[in-house]
Amino acid sequence: MHPQRWGDPAAAAPLPESARGLIEMAFGLDDRPAAAAVSLPEARIDPVLLDGLRDLLGAEHVRTDDQTRRLRTRGKSTPDLLRARAGDLSDAPDAVLRPGSHEDVAAILAVAVEHHLAVVPFGGGTSVTGGLVARREGYAGLLSLDLIRMNRLLAVDHVSMTAVLEPGLRGPEAEALLAAEGLTLGHYPQSFEYASIGGFAATRSSGQSSAGYGRFDALVVGLRVATPIGELALGSAPANAAGPDLRQLVLGSEGAFGVITSVTVRVRRLPAQKVYEGWRWPSFAAGADAMRTLAQSGLLPTVIRLSDESETAINLARPDEIGAESAGGCMMITGYEGEAGIVAARRREVTDVLTGLGGVSLGEEPGQSWSQGRFNAPYLRDSLLDVGVLVETLETATFWSNRDRLYTEVRAALETTLGEGTMVLCHISHVYETGCSLYFTVATKEGPEPVDQWLKAKAAASDAMMAAGATITHHHAVGTDHKPWLAAEIGEVGVSILRAIKADLDPTGILNPGVLIP
Amino acid sequence: MHPQRWGDPAAAAPLPESARGLIEMAFGLDDRPAAAAVSLPEARIDPVLLDGLRDLLGAEHVRTDDQTRRLRTRGKSTPDLLRARAGDLSDAPDAVLRPGSHEDVAAILAVAVEHHLAVVPFGGGTSVTGGLVARREGYAGLLSLDLIRMNRLLAVDHVSMTAVLEPGLRGPEAEALLAAEGLTLGHYPQSFEYASIGGFAATRSSGQSSAGYGRFDALVVGLRVATPIGELALGSAPANAAGPDLRQLVLGSEGAFGVITSVTVRVRRLPAQKVYEGWRWPSFAAGADAMRTLAQSGLLPTVIRLSDESETAINLARPDEIGAESAGGCMMITGYEGEAGIVAARRREVTDVLTGLGGVSLGEEPGQSWSQGRFNAPYLRDSLLDVGVLVETLETATFWSNRDRLYTEVRAALETTLGEGTMVLCHISHVYETGCSLYFTVATKEGPEPVDQWLKAKAAASDAMMAAGATITHHHAVGTDHKPWLAAEIGEVGVSILRAIKADLDPTGILNPGVLIP
Repeated sequence: MHPQRWGDPAAAAPLPESARGLIEMAFGLDDRPAAAAVSLPEARIDPVLLDGLRDLLGAEHVRTDDQTRRLRTRGKSTPDLLRARAGDLSDAPDAVLRPGSHEDVAAILAVAVEHHLAVVPFGGGTSVTGGLVARREGYAGLLSLDLIRMNRLLAVDHVSMTAVLEPGLRGPEAEALLAAEGLTLGHYPQSFEYASIGGFAATRSSGQSSAGYGRFDALVVGLRVATPIGELALGSAPANAAGPDLRQLVLGSEGAFGVITSVTVRVRRLPAQKVYEGWRWPSFAAGADAMRTLAQSGLLPTVIRLSDESETAINLARPDEIGAESAGGCMMITGYEGEAGIVAARRREVTDVLTGLGGVSLGEEPGQSWSQGRFNAPYLRDSLLDVGVLVETLETATFWSNRDRLYTEVRAALETTLGEGTMVLCHISHVYETGCSLYFTVATKEGPEPVDQWLKAKAAASDAMMAAGATITHHHAVGTDHKPWLAAEIGEVGVSILRAIKADLDPTGILNPGVLIP
Repeated sequence: MHPQRWGDPAAAAPLPESARGLIEMAFGLDDRPAAAAVSLPEARIDPVLLDGLRDLLGAEHVRTDDQTRRLRTRGKSTPDLLRARAGDLSDAPDAVLRPGSHEDVAAILAVAVEHHLAVVPFGGGTSVTGGLVARREGYAGLLSLDLIRMNRLLAVDHVSMTAVLEPGLRGPEAEALLAAEGLTLGHYPQSFEYASIGGFAATRSSGQSSAGYGRFDALVVGLRVATPIGELALGSAPANAAGPDLRQLVLGSEGAFGVITSVTVRVRRLPAQKVYEGWRWPSFAAGADAMRTLAQSGLLPTVIRLSDESETAINLARPDEIGAESAGGCMMITGYEGEAGIVAARRREVTDVLTGLGGVSLGEEPGQSWSQGRFNAPYLRDSLLDVGVLVETLETATFWSNRDRLYTEVRAALETTLGEGTMVLCHISHVYETGCSLYFTVATKEGPEPVDQWLKAKAAASDAMMAAGATITHHHAVGTDHKPWLAAEIGEVGVSILRAIKADLDPTGILNPGVLIP
């Protein structure tokens, strides 16, 4: 991963000509100078402590070189990238540790408690909510706990259809190990190529196939966690009534309660077939109502997503064709994965419903095109930042009856704050019987203070979410960026519960300080 | 509800002749004298406090008469009934309060905190794990918080398909209110006729249609809770990533963290059709494997349950025919609920799978028979206790690959402890992709100390569950009876989390003291 951009530089593509034209028309092209040279703050940690950690892990697993530290600095939100492009890597960790096992993690936590070192668990580094920007003041140093060596498939149970995965496994690594067993996890968030199993669990991630495979929190049946007060191992059964479900406390805990050292997940058989299809709807409302009908009839495909009119107009669902001509209306993508017979049957049922509701099938071509480009949007953001277009996303969720209000008010908040010429695009990519997510992409001309420019817009949108009674985040977690709104969502008593758990599990507050808990 | 028996005396039926014959052969008939006259301990609470509560709620909602207190004493486990039959109602509350609103509950909690009164939330009174047996030592009195007046359907959202229910609604009351709106909750545990919405939530109940409608915890999208430190209101979206899912902390909290004052649930359209069918399998293993195949193919019916050979032999799945001739093998019940087209399609798919795996359809008659008798087993228990047969149930859950071990070891523990002539019957009534529940019914000749006799057997079975890595309870909660095993299941760190939350929400420990938290 590049410290100032998304992903693999070799995979980055220049803006397609059609998109360049569109951008020029909308915002003007304002090619930016290459990013500033990135200077790192000096490591502020007692070398004696590092020697102790080297004894524990082996010298090669305690890194203090600039290159390693640079790559463990912050996540991949647009403000993160803008700061890095401006040469600010002031949040760099003082050292990067690479534990190889649960026991290593537990030992590191013991040292961290003893010497009051802040510990930031690091998986794929793809946080877009400041989940890796820990508070360092008052600590003897800030350690990045890089889980990259914990990348094993620990066990597979083909009868129960479960697998035990280590937290450092990246999406593609986990899928490759499972594929060798004829299995799949089916979790494909946009960050899939870089994000990790531990991160999926710690942030309650949700993938593009959530309608078919479930959110990541629904895939988890067991967890092992190293906390400063000892090991927490959960998952005695698929479901139980033995008190509150503590797994659901670890899921979404963002490294603030403990370090997830293995995750037992439900797996499925590798699908024999994957088919994706495009649909056109006369309006966002008509398409959304159709999604609701499917969800409430128990007839969801594996993938279902719907772009609003603006997103459809610029073909954002198909990054390779941004700016190409759009036939109007709203584009929906449906996808079916599984055995051929089941795929065909479900596709037939869904087609009947969608056709009956006024959808028009565009065939498989738009679906395949979406599928091929599905992980590319973050590269596109870099290309836009390169020409002075400020691009960022935010997302929320609500119940169906509140969808239209939430959509209208968040959109208005963004447009009002960012001013004329701002593009606000939206899609629904996760649906439930009772509601759905709304995912906004915003593009505007970059001003002189782009970080502040965005944070103001984000604050207005977040206020609008709270005013509408929606959630501050459907699948991006709280981090530091959403923290100011968490109390509005879960109330003072909810915050008090989080603080009590934090105080219990991490009494000296070494774990990801400043993240999640208001 | 009768204080010494289940349910409505008018609904209780005598043992069918066939069953009487079977029981006589197996255990001998030992008709018991009528239960002892039930004497209540005197209320131990300062009358001045009661006057204060009367000012708060109205005199008619603060009850201290024997009849009311008697009916709020303990739950309906066999030990509860045995103690009550022996005239022991020493756990009776000192007073029964009937709040009418969230605000009433909050006000009662404030008084309870001020005067250190223990508060036991009371819904249907159907706990079978000692969930209503609070510790009274050290408190100025023990209040039963009877939620019976909080029985309204507060809101219905036909677009989002959600409803807001008050906690005191009994199962049939909630279904009747929803049916008037064309909706159903679809939650039918065996205790359905008496148990309450608040109780379903507080104990993570699971109903007989869980395969189709989901466990109660899966039906809940929002909760309002009165705690000693204030109100907790959760449920901003169907799902979110705004930190840990605190709803899952309230679910299963058994009145120890707060009093649930409303529950927002997902609802479904009232099914146009309900069809139940019987199937015969050559063995429990063959039937269980078929359930697993269905669950892992995403082809579950609305209801699916399978009796083992012993349970099938005495027709326990069809209480009216207990002791009648059985054709051997293992009986499975499948049920389908929904629109006619969907019912027919799903039934066809399931039939194909089950037939292919060696199941033999017995047609609808056994299914209808099960459906008609489905809530009767607790009455049968009373009839058996009347003739000196000790009957009780216990249940657990595990992953599929561990099913056979768990079944064998729990069964052996019960048989070994209770001795020759003990009947141990088992069924699977809740299935998941990764595992299933096991529900045991035990019958043995009642000895001179039947409570101790059962507790010893229960302890042995519980130890066996823990040794097998299973859960202490799939859907009956912890109460006081399962508490000794909870630490083995969630570990010391898990217990520490529960204690920390308890200390935060209920710092003076007035809520259901002694229940849930080790």
